[in-house]
Amino acid sequence: MISDPQGGAIKRGFAPEEFADRLARAQALMDRHGFAALLLTTEPDVRYFSGFLTPFWQSPTRPWFLVVPAAGKPIAVIPEIGAECMARSWIDDIHTWPAPRPEDDGVTLLTSVLRKVAGAGTIAVAMGAESHLRMPLNDYARLRSGLGGTDFADATPVIRALRQIKSAAEIDKIAKACDAAGAAFDAVPEIISAGMSDTDAFRAFTIACLEAGADTVAYLVGGAGEGGYGDIISPPGARVLRAGDLFMLDTGCVFDGYFCDYDRNYALGAVAPEVERAHDAVYMATEAGLAAARPGATCAEVYAAMQKVLEAGGALGNAVGRLGHGLGMQLTEWPSFSAGDDTVIEPGMVLTLEPGMCFAPGRSIVHEENIVIHEDGAHLLTRRAPRTLPVIR
Amino acid sequence: MISDPQGGAIKRGFAPEEFADRLARAQALMDRHGFAALLLTTEPDVRYFSGFLTPFWQSPTRPWFLVVPAAGKPIAVIPEIGAECMARSWIDDIHTWPAPRPEDDGVTLLTSVLRKVAGAGTIAVAMGAESHLRMPLNDYARLRSGLGGTDFADATPVIRALRQIKSAAEIDKIAKACDAAGAAFDAVPEIISAGMSDTDAFRAFTIACLEAGADTVAYLVGGAGEGGYGDIISPPGARVLRAGDLFMLDTGCVFDGYFCDYDRNYALGAVAPEVERAHDAVYMATEAGLAAARPGATCAEVYAAMQKVLEAGGALGNAVGRLGHGLGMQLTEWPSFSAGDDTVIEPGMVLTLEPGMCFAPGRSIVHEENIVIHEDGAHLLTRRAPRTLPVIR
Repeated sequence: MISDPQGGAIKRGFAPEEFADRLARAQALMDRHGFAALLLTTEPDVRYFSGFLTPFWQSPTRPWFLVVPAAGKPIAVIPEIGAECMARSWIDDIHTWPAPRPEDDGVTLLTSVLRKVAGAGTIAVAMGAESHLRMPLNDYARLRSGLGGTDFADATPVIRALRQIKSAAEIDKIAKACDAAGAAFDAVPEIISAGMSDTDAFRAFTIACLEAGADTVAYLVGGAGEGGYGDIISPPGARVLRAGDLFMLDTGCVFDGYFCDYDRNYALGAVAPEVERAHDAVYMATEAGLAAARPGATCAEVYAAMQKVLEAGGALGNAVGRLGHGLGMQLTEWPSFSAGDDTVIEPGMVLTLEPGMCFAPGRSIVHEENIVIHEDGAHLLTRRAPRTLPVIR
Repeated sequence: MISDPQGGAIKRGFAPEEFADRLARAQALMDRHGFAALLLTTEPDVRYFSGFLTPFWQSPTRPWFLVVPAAGKPIAVIPEIGAECMARSWIDDIHTWPAPRPEDDGVTLLTSVLRKVAGAGTIAVAMGAESHLRMPLNDYARLRSGLGGTDFADATPVIRALRQIKSAAEIDKIAKACDAAGAAFDAVPEIISAGMSDTDAFRAFTIACLEAGADTVAYLVGGAGEGGYGDIISPPGARVLRAGDLFMLDTGCVFDGYFCDYDRNYALGAVAPEVERAHDAVYMATEAGLAAARPGATCAEVYAAMQKVLEAGGALGNAVGRLGHGLGMQLTEWPSFSAGDDTVIEPGMVLTLEPGMCFAPGRSIVHEENIVIHEDGAHLLTRRAPRTLPVIR
């Protein structure tokens, strides 16, 4: 029998007070924006306001809706198949229809709920950066037509402002996901070795994450190559790990619906001196990020602090487009550590520091740590990567 | 070291001829509909026409676009981070921008590519059942505005017609995913036992799937309860498995980007006679589905054949809303075995037969098998569930 080392200490789910607090903050922002209702359609947004947690979102067949009114608790408008699971969440008012029913997959029901909740007021739907609408466009058009002249506005500023600042309970869950991945990263020299295929290495690592308490390993990418890897978003290939390779694994383990997102690099035996130098540059860039990521600093300033170290360390460029980002209910969330992101860092933000660079044509290296912002600065949620590249034989 | 029992026999990826065939069939349908271009934004649609396979879609930050012209190969318009991975796909023409760049996340670039490819012709985007647009609504509005009076039409009929019929290579991958899950289901009596928490049971099963050759276990839900379970979409809870429980696991294992989707039921020791009777009803309903699912039959007819058996077996209802569905690159795809789905079954379709019913208040049972349609009828991709409930101690 496999134990659940993570499950004991950290309670799953959230206290009702946490949902009440999220709702109160949402309604205060809605009031400021003049929104009569939020209409939520994606897994994290629905879960944030309800606690509705199910992998069933993997099925694209049925749309799911949560309506946040200007006053009172959210209202679920969902397929019948989810009624029992939703009834165990924080939501009391649950409207269902027998889905799938392509000719009217909840549109009439949702129209009537929104009309009642919002009257002639503005309905806000996520329309901004990093969002999408999880319902068919034809159904969205029918909904808007059914609601006549109702104004639709962008809910992204409200959702982002809320989700970007994590509660203590949310931070605990992210920390647990970090711990599970950390135990697996520590085990890598014992479970992965030269001669192994990428596929075998990824599988061994996934199992190690699960055994260390991850609920799922929703994200795992990596790269390996002599003297550096070429890209950092690839699934395992047919390639076999060889002495001289720089090997990287980057994982999003999930605990109770919350992600970690960080990587570790390993040398298969000895790597070339320029790889060691590049490794040192990304390590020191992370140090610069740790020092710079404080309340009141902007994301652009943290980016600049890391980028300066990378450039001094010989960076030729970086295809990732940023040097870190928010995380939580999703692998990546707002904001971005990029030159153009002026988001001011606040306590409660959970972020990744992810300095990476191309240091020779086709050869990259990237480091990543997860941090939480407190009043006094950045605190690591991950155990800091070692200063010198760990070695696999 | 963990071996890769599935990786040897079945080649990963697809031959270039397969992508050429998909494209030719798409362009023939586009011609019939008068579409000058398809604009694709979701993971399966982009992958179907390119072979671009990466778990990076877990990150919602960056949009990805593939444009299928009326003639010639598809064109990728993607974030820089994906350039190297896309270059290893079937696609030659790759346009990138430094994403994330919220003020213009590919919109200007995509507008210019579409204008060149489609001229003043109609651009088709998925708008229909089971689809969504994976880009911010604000960016979609900017794109449409930038393209002036260009007509946008629904691409769903084209995409669905193509993806609904699987090639031999696609069927092989689904069969491998079925095999991995099947080996794990067979192992359940050895790895799961009374006294185990749901969380532990799910984790042990996930590891068994991976050890049997699944790349990932993207979907795993289940239920357990004395004399039947209540819902079938829940993640593991704090509950402990007890003698007398009916226990069900339903998994979507993935091999090379293709899903299986089926479940197995187990009795923890002896279950009540009405559970055995309900189990027999869903077993026999599956038999009826296997006989009915033949080329030329409609999905509604297959539904009726299964539903008749369930009603005779004491079904009180079924919150799932259908008795099976398509599958492949996604856990669930068109069509549905439902009363209202008149889709005609064709050779090459891969489908689930999923008869389920509520047989007492709050107590349900569901069976599921995966089939492929040949000229002579349905062939199982799963090893048929046993007629009598397997027992766990």
